Amino acid sequence: MARRLWHIIERGFYPDRQLHHETIFTIGNGYLGTRGSFEEGYEGDTPSTLVHGIFDHAPNMLVPELVNVPNWLPIHITIDGTPFRLVTQASDYMRPQDGLVLGFERILELDRGILSREVLFRAASGNIVRLIFERFASLDNEHILAQRVRVIAVDGSPQIEVEAALDGDVTNAGAQHWLPDMTVLAENEVIGLEAKTQQSSYVVGIASKLITKSAVQHTGSGLQPGLRTSLQLAQEDEAVFDKISVIYSSRDVTAPLTSAVAEVQKAAKTGYDQLLAQHTREWSKYWETADILIEGDDECQLALRFTTYHILITAPRHDENASIGAKTLSGLGYKGHVFWDTELFALPPLTLTQPQLARNLLMYRYHRLPGARHKAQANGFEGAMFPWESTDTGEETTPQWSDPQPDGTRIRIWTGDTEQHISTDIAYGVWQYWHWTGDDDFLKRYGAEIILDTAVFWGSRVEEKNGRYEISQQIGPDEYHENVDNSVFTNRMVVWHLETALSLLDWLKNHAASDHDRLAATLKLTPDRLAKWRDIIARMVIPFDAEKQIHIQFPGFFDMEYIPVPNYTPRTSSVQAIVGHSRSIQSQVIKQADVVMMMALLGDQVANREVMLNNWNTYYPRTDHGSSLSPAMHAWVAGRLGLMETAYDMFHHAVHIDLHDNKGNVRDGIHAAACGGVFQAVLFGFCGLELTPEGPKLVEPRLPEHWRRVQFNVYYRGAKHTFEVGGPA
Amino acid sequence: MARRLWHIIERGFYPDRQLHHETIFTIGNGYLGTRGSFEEGYEGDTPSTLVHGIFDHAPNMLVPELVNVPNWLPIHITIDGTPFRLVTQASDYMRPQDGLVLGFERILELDRGILSREVLFRAASGNIVRLIFERFASLDNEHILAQRVRVIAVDGSPQIEVEAALDGDVTNAGAQHWLPDMTVLAENEVIGLEAKTQQSSYVVGIASKLITKSAVQHTGSGLQPGLRTSLQLAQEDEAVFDKISVIYSSRDVTAPLTSAVAEVQKAAKTGYDQLLAQHTREWSKYWETADILIEGDDECQLALRFTTYHILITAPRHDENASIGAKTLSGLGYKGHVFWDTELFALPPLTLTQPQLARNLLMYRYHRLPGARHKAQANGFEGAMFPWESTDTGEETTPQWSDPQPDGTRIRIWTGDTEQHISTDIAYGVWQYWHWTGDDDFLKRYGAEIILDTAVFWGSRVEEKNGRYEISQQIGPDEYHENVDNSVFTNRMVVWHLETALSLLDWLKNHAASDHDRLAATLKLTPDRLAKWRDIIARMVIPFDAEKQIHIQFPGFFDMEYIPVPNYTPRTSSVQAIVGHSRSIQSQVIKQADVVMMMALLGDQVANREVMLNNWNTYYPRTDHGSSLSPAMHAWVAGRLGLMETAYDMFHHAVHIDLHDNKGNVRDGIHAAACGGVFQAVLFGFCGLELTPEGPKLVEPRLPEHWRRVQFNVYYRGAKHTFEVGGPA
Repeated sequence: MARRLWHIIERGFYPDRQLHHETIFTIGNGYLGTRGSFEEGYEGDTPSTLVHGIFDHAPNMLVPELVNVPNWLPIHITIDGTPFRLVTQASDYMRPQDGLVLGFERILELDRGILSREVLFRAASGNIVRLIFERFASLDNEHILAQRVRVIAVDGSPQIEVEAALDGDVTNAGAQHWLPDMTVLAENEVIGLEAKTQQSSYVVGIASKLITKSAVQHTGSGLQPGLRTSLQLAQEDEAVFDKISVIYSSRDVTAPLTSAVAEVQKAAKTGYDQLLAQHTREWSKYWETADILIEGDDECQLALRFTTYHILITAPRHDENASIGAKTLSGLGYKGHVFWDTELFALPPLTLTQPQLARNLLMYRYHRLPGARHKAQANGFEGAMFPWESTDTGEETTPQWSDPQPDGTRIRIWTGDTEQHISTDIAYGVWQYWHWTGDDDFLKRYGAEIILDTAVFWGSRVEEKNGRYEISQQIGPDEYHENVDNSVFTNRMVVWHLETALSLLDWLKNHAASDHDRLAATLKLTPDRLAKWRDIIARMVIPFDAEKQIHIQFPGFFDMEYIPVPNYTPRTSSVQAIVGHSRSIQSQVIKQADVVMMMALLGDQVANREVMLNNWNTYYPRTDHGSSLSPAMHAWVAGRLGLMETAYDMFHHAVHIDLHDNKGNVRDGIHAAACGGVFQAVLFGFCGLELTPEGPKLVEPRLPEHWRRVQFNVYYRGAKHTFEVGGPA
Repeated sequence: MARRLWHIIERGFYPDRQLHHETIFTIGNGYLGTRGSFEEGYEGDTPSTLVHGIFDHAPNMLVPELVNVPNWLPIHITIDGTPFRLVTQASDYMRPQDGLVLGFERILELDRGILSREVLFRAASGNIVRLIFERFASLDNEHILAQRVRVIAVDGSPQIEVEAALDGDVTNAGAQHWLPDMTVLAENEVIGLEAKTQQSSYVVGIASKLITKSAVQHTGSGLQPGLRTSLQLAQEDEAVFDKISVIYSSRDVTAPLTSAVAEVQKAAKTGYDQLLAQHTREWSKYWETADILIEGDDECQLALRFTTYHILITAPRHDENASIGAKTLSGLGYKGHVFWDTELFALPPLTLTQPQLARNLLMYRYHRLPGARHKAQANGFEGAMFPWESTDTGEETTPQWSDPQPDGTRIRIWTGDTEQHISTDIAYGVWQYWHWTGDDDFLKRYGAEIILDTAVFWGSRVEEKNGRYEISQQIGPDEYHENVDNSVFTNRMVVWHLETALSLLDWLKNHAASDHDRLAATLKLTPDRLAKWRDIIARMVIPFDAEKQIHIQFPGFFDMEYIPVPNYTPRTSSVQAIVGHSRSIQSQVIKQADVVMMMALLGDQVANREVMLNNWNTYYPRTDHGSSLSPAMHAWVAGRLGLMETAYDMFHHAVHIDLHDNKGNVRDGIHAAACGGVFQAVLFGFCGLELTPEGPKLVEPRLPEHWRRVQFNVYYRGAKHTFEVGGPA
């Protein structure tokens, strides 16, 4: 009965949902992600395989992007000369010679990380075959990709021809990142490609082998080397075709294609069945800790597993120089860039359930401190100022201008300049990681330097005015309001940051004196600097309305036009899109959790229950959730406030963002932040998970009314703890 | 939290699903059904209101059909002169002057019988309104139909114009059933139409009234009388428009329009809120008994409620001369005709949970005994031979020819001639009703006559050959094999029928001697006739393979080509459609439960467990479920055999037939038989409900693995019994 609560099932093929479903059905293993495009292709498809860390900055593009590597998926099958493809009765171009698809079903097995597809197909000859496709990206050996096609002669005795190919003729939506002179290999029943990126000079090598009982011959041409076999099937007989592929890059080895060829020969000897067994064994290990059990809500249970799956397949497992992009490895959206989405949304589930992967993500930031220091310096500040958008280099890669609008103009993008809270978000991720894991080694050697040098940045960033500290020209989480002064989220998080930096220094002094001294020396943590931090903590402007007992998102916020967001229901676009950009930015419409986000992150450090409720009642009806980051944070805070109906509505929305594609942009990739956010909504928001001095505890857990039981695991200081809310009374 | 398990929710409007969803969102009250078409219309829509019993035989049509009555739905709204309609961004014809739909959500509340829709709409002027539509067909007074539209000015201060209309220009997919000279009424702020059918001379009268705060004026022309009002809305203000309509026919009253006008004035005084309260109170009474609770499977819980809803809204409540058509009142499919689907599929849920409604359905058959006797006589038989397709008259109304095929030819339809088991199916329904209800009055006065006179038919129908009784030229439930000799289903059910007739006579003799004597006299139940019945019971051919210990669907069945149906997976069409008609009828491919159906109906009367399993293993892999009647019966029998995985698969398929529209024909109406079949699969198949001499009992209940608890109610002899399977150990 695994199907119900573990399988994402697509019944029937609908071309208008093709790109959405390509994203949904992405497979991956923390090394690469491959969209759920079809082996045989389909008009308008966007097959993409993205490998962590392989960025390139193409000519005429504003910024670098993750590069779509050569396509390892192609398997072309002909039945009695009819090419198999998804010709449906709805197709305009259906002609008898195209054959006909009689049935289609696709399943993503979340529990085993396998994508499969079954199709019943009638060739022009009248013979009918059943095709069963299966593919996985090995979690056991992350370079190995495996495909199996079973062809069953259902009616008649058809002639089957199978061609397994590689395709080096790939771009990023038209942008060419590869040098034209790829190496094409075709020998000993192995095909291969080796390619180098134009600007960044990364080399990627891919090799494939076709394994079947009938003779295999080389075929193909140009950048599409292929392997072909053919046979005649007796009625009701079955033929099996396995294609094993291997990818290496110059980030892994010195001669990627050579390594790929060697590995593919080895994997072919191991065989598909054994590779599959190793793969699924690894998956079951991951799920043992990662799974959150929800009893009483099948729909959300399945959706929550879907979000966990997508976090797991994108988190780098053996790589300290890659991180999770805003759209994971499942699409080209945001060009594979890394945002605050990682540390505040996608990281916490890993910190709590797969701490070794969380560590990798934080090491990615540690290794990019030079870039952050460079950005601080270039902007006239001290310390480390992390880029809003980050790639392999660690330099700021936020484009300054948008893509052209319908009228041809471009809009200035300010986030790379002024959405500076990212540095504190990263510090928060480090601090949370250390608190949960107790990984002192990491903190002393790497994490402390991140927290402290970003604190140095803030110490140089704040402005002293009229005896108070201010921060002007910021973008808080609510990106509808750009370059505001004294964003309460930013200012208050900076206070937390400096407090944390001071606590950290105390801890280091007591527990790692030599590290303390080393960091104090290299980062110039002079007594004057620390005194200034203390002064900032004491005198930072925290916009607050004492009469109404609410935080003010930024001074002047309430002077703008009030637009009652709940009236704009139902809607498929944001209120900003409905009322227009110029009006919305001069109104109180909020894009996403901002003051609410602050309450999620800092809880009762920042407000008592009365102020929390006041803030909620003020900001919730002003928020249009124009960002996918918003609903999960609202579910979290509403859960803490005991507003369980709203909490559930927000959670339900958040956990289905990718499955329902309400905003129509899932074609660009999975929303990593939403995937990580729903985990936090359940654990921190509903179950009340807190890290107390005695360890993790559930404080006033409250489930949505119809949830009977929630069970989950977290690691605390290396030991696994299992928690349960609800259950047998 | 009613939404999750009681509401069918449509998020966003997709024109390609329009007709499917029109069917899904049908409302009704046992008097009429109205498809979920929109108040303002949409290109290609098929608004239909079908009233029980209003049939007409149009010129040039082969058979009569249920008539689409004048449309009571139209409400046309303009915002600042922009007509409101579902202009979506996907529309080809989107132009600024069309306005734009910014959001859409539609909900069918199964618990309260209310269909609602919310739309956010921007007029060409730029002003934005939120429109909330609500409609219901009163379950309290079945002539009353109510609509409410709330218009909220979300942005700007728009001028609103509302026109509520009736539309007499309606056809059945082009077939004109109404005489052209309708009466059109427009006075005292009431509009009305009265129309007469061409051939059958039924008269239908409809009156409507628009209730709102602003002044109402008459408008419209021809067959579209209207009522118009207009007002300007201040920003954030709301206007409410109620439209109350009333329908009467000449089956109810002598002057339908006059009655409708009087009733609509009365209902308008009662007011929408009060009408709604009365309506929902009635619904809660129905659900109190009708609901089957499934814990552990939210998806099936909702779907099962959906099927129950559709049985409840189509079952006549105060009418002994109407019955449930194969497609309910939700579409024009099968022309509103009544098949065996009623007695063997849709009736049992009513017999067990709403016995008064079951009685109405059986009285419909009783009143049509003259037609059945006429059919018997015309075919050279005695007694009563019910028509395969039945309408108001009780005459056979199965068309002899299909609609034209793509090549212009028509196919001969034999079911009206040779699918004769219908008479026994009706007898089965009567006997089951009496057993459960103990309604002796019904049996003595009406039911017995049905069972006995159809037994008389069979006594004259069987053929004596070589010392055995045979029945030649039959169509059993498996309609792929027409005019076969000795269908085991038919022959065995006839044996059951004659046994039942004899038991019934015994009972009558002991409990109602005068009725016994009356029936014996009028139906000529002579000792010779009864002796022949006993002889038939003893010597009927029951095709059985003693060596393999299986029933034979009909002699010669296994001589035909064997086609392994499971290989034809996945498929959206039947295997018959895939391999072609001429091949399939000469093969062992079975359309639907046939021997399996016999096992469902007769259980261990017909076979011990070993034979049941042998039959299952023989026929299940040969059945392509080309009929929507099949999966639920398979779920039932698989449940009894303890094959719970298959049982669940079949149940899941059956309960989603209309919601998933796997066969693409839901546009023609709800599958009534599937709706009734799933009820029986749960109660008889999974829970093992049996009527024992001591009353109803659960015998060896077995639930699908993940179902934790099932709870349901049944009436037995006037008393409500609540049963539970699973639950706290």
